[in-house]
Amino acid sequence: MKRQRPGWLLERLAGALQRKLSAAAVQLELWDGQIRYSGPHPPIGALVVDDARTLRGLLFNPNLRFGEAYMAGRLRVRGELEPVLEAVSRLSPTMTWREWFSQYLSVGNSPSRARENVHHHYDLGNDFYRGWLDEQLLYTCAYFEHPDVSLEEAQRAKMDLVCRKVRLRPGDTVVEAGCGWGALALHMARAYGARVKAFNVSREQIAYARARAAREGLAGQVEFIDDDYRNAQGECDVFVSVGMLEHVGLAHYDSLSAVLRRVVRRATGRGLLHFIGRDFRRPLNAWIRRRIFPGAYAPTLAEVTTRVLTPARMSVLDVENLRLHYARTLRHWSGRFAAMEGQVRARYGEEFRRAWELYLAGSEAAFAVSSLQLFQIVFSPAEAPPPYWSRTEVYRGVETADQWFAATR
Amino acid sequence: MKRQRPGWLLERLAGALQRKLSAAAVQLELWDGQIRYSGPHPPIGALVVDDARTLRGLLFNPNLRFGEAYMAGRLRVRGELEPVLEAVSRLSPTMTWREWFSQYLSVGNSPSRARENVHHHYDLGNDFYRGWLDEQLLYTCAYFEHPDVSLEEAQRAKMDLVCRKVRLRPGDTVVEAGCGWGALALHMARAYGARVKAFNVSREQIAYARARAAREGLAGQVEFIDDDYRNAQGECDVFVSVGMLEHVGLAHYDSLSAVLRRVVRRATGRGLLHFIGRDFRRPLNAWIRRRIFPGAYAPTLAEVTTRVLTPARMSVLDVENLRLHYARTLRHWSGRFAAMEGQVRARYGEEFRRAWELYLAGSEAAFAVSSLQLFQIVFSPAEAPPPYWSRTEVYRGVETADQWFAATR
Repeated sequence: MKRQRPGWLLERLAGALQRKLSAAAVQLELWDGQIRYSGPHPPIGALVVDDARTLRGLLFNPNLRFGEAYMAGRLRVRGELEPVLEAVSRLSPTMTWREWFSQYLSVGNSPSRARENVHHHYDLGNDFYRGWLDEQLLYTCAYFEHPDVSLEEAQRAKMDLVCRKVRLRPGDTVVEAGCGWGALALHMARAYGARVKAFNVSREQIAYARARAAREGLAGQVEFIDDDYRNAQGECDVFVSVGMLEHVGLAHYDSLSAVLRRVVRRATGRGLLHFIGRDFRRPLNAWIRRRIFPGAYAPTLAEVTTRVLTPARMSVLDVENLRLHYARTLRHWSGRFAAMEGQVRARYGEEFRRAWELYLAGSEAAFAVSSLQLFQIVFSPAEAPPPYWSRTEVYRGVETADQWFAATR
Repeated sequence: MKRQRPGWLLERLAGALQRKLSAAAVQLELWDGQIRYSGPHPPIGALVVDDARTLRGLLFNPNLRFGEAYMAGRLRVRGELEPVLEAVSRLSPTMTWREWFSQYLSVGNSPSRARENVHHHYDLGNDFYRGWLDEQLLYTCAYFEHPDVSLEEAQRAKMDLVCRKVRLRPGDTVVEAGCGWGALALHMARAYGARVKAFNVSREQIAYARARAAREGLAGQVEFIDDDYRNAQGECDVFVSVGMLEHVGLAHYDSLSAVLRRVVRRATGRGLLHFIGRDFRRPLNAWIRRRIFPGAYAPTLAEVTTRVLTPARMSVLDVENLRLHYARTLRHWSGRFAAMEGQVRARYGEEFRRAWELYLAGSEAAFAVSSLQLFQIVFSPAEAPPPYWSRTEVYRGVETADQWFAATR
């Protein structure tokens, strides 16, 4: 490790960076051992930078270079990782010029590219995910009725929340776009008597889901289809997509919209989109797009309503923002991931382990500081009656809608 | 009344109009007594047209001329008014060229024009509204936990729903933009211990609200301000606006946004917008704009998020669509209005009575067929924690948010 002082220019820039970080009570520790911190409170943690190249990366392209350096171990965090990331995340609430520019360079997700992108992330091996997800392998935001319930319970509550929001009933036909390891599709069949066609382009996940369906005697009710959801045929009562829209990419929202228009039964259908979103247009973090989710984009509500729902002539019935629930979910995942640190390092290497540690903690920070949102949108065709009369039915189980519609239509 | 047959061209056009109306099971009855109806079912009702001028109006500018002719009594409806309007409303789900064009002709609502527009509608006399609104004079969508509760109960439930959604607490300061006759502001003070500044530019309403506050001993907690809400000063914990956004007009959303940014406390504030909206951009019905609500516009969700909330750096926490609750509210109002038919005719004349009868029934039809929506949006500054942990607290009264935030922040 070099002990040399940074040059004159770099020293000035490091000072400026430290002043910015001081506002977040984070210390910048360079390889020269010098203390530059000047915040009013003792620092909550420090960014430890080993060399001039890493410092230059932090100065000129932090969105990408922070992650690259962290992954390589050239940048370390002293103190607890997540609070430091939260503090740092609060410093850049608006879009940088680089982010603005990158919007015009991003590529769309054709079916073949979508398949590659999904393969990149989801086909790491079911064993890997089994190590830190809940027992049913739900890799999306859970729903904690109370913040203290277990992850297992919160994931079951999420599945019930989705089913109740679309008022799933026995015999309903469902199209699920992006079904992961199949937990929701199987839950819909088992607990609600629905018949589900579940689409996924991850081969490992589909194989797992099919085996589980066979084992649980649900293969007759749930069809796991190794195909792009855009190839869905026929009509359905309910369309659900949990954690898939992020991978669609803005340029392909029109084809999602066309699918909704084609498959959701106009007179009685309804649907739910569950996705990571933004308050305002901004690309996902550059490092996340390079290393974790190629091709991913978190849309604003307006992008989803104007590009997906309105062209499909769908009416928005309900939107819920569950960002703190995703922060909580990620905290559970981080804890379990940390507990299997040794195994991950042995199997995938230290660089991979650090990348995933940063991805989980950084995502928690982003949801905690409201840089990312988690939206659930319930919609129905303009011609269809809403699936319930009031939310009382969703949250207290009073089912009056049928009586009401029977009496008035 | 002329008994002459329509000329050749008008006859052809009447035939075409009847074919369109037949799809809605509505008969067209012209002055010549001829039957042109050809639907597969017996008609549910009829439009009775007295002369060629009225027929031409229906053919060439139905959005405006239907109302004008109905008001004048040159067009009558045989059968029940509301179901016929519903059936007819279903025939034009998309924007006409005339509507498209009119978007570019509409004028904005400067403070002085806003005052005029409001005067036009709301200063008809408190006695008039007392005749057909609920006992507390709430002139906005009620919330029927169950469709059979009374209008009085549903209006109280609406006020509680608003207060619970923003988690109103003792000592909270509230700015209410557009307070009507003051019921919500008084309820917030009485039932929740809030201190409210309530703005309204209708002099009659403000006078009524002040008298009520004094009578109920709440004048110390609620200040009714005869001014444009855009002049609100200082900071508040909670911003609410129920049924006012419709009168703001798209051209002035930036000033609403600036008010939100200025007055809502960044670290802990939150707010609620309750307004009539649309699934897609479309001006309000031309006749409604001429006779009932000059300057009014019902925005899409995307217009409100991108033009009002995002520029104010507000995060959307919750959206609920209550369109069927507004249809139900309007049905109550229509029933009470019909019961005082004689009085209204005597005081305001038959033309006025017919205009209001049509406005109430037509609005009910528009909400019933999903041509209008009623949105409640809960938002908070990106920096602020959401007001509750999960909806369970709103719908079941479990208050865990404080414990949670205390434990984690």
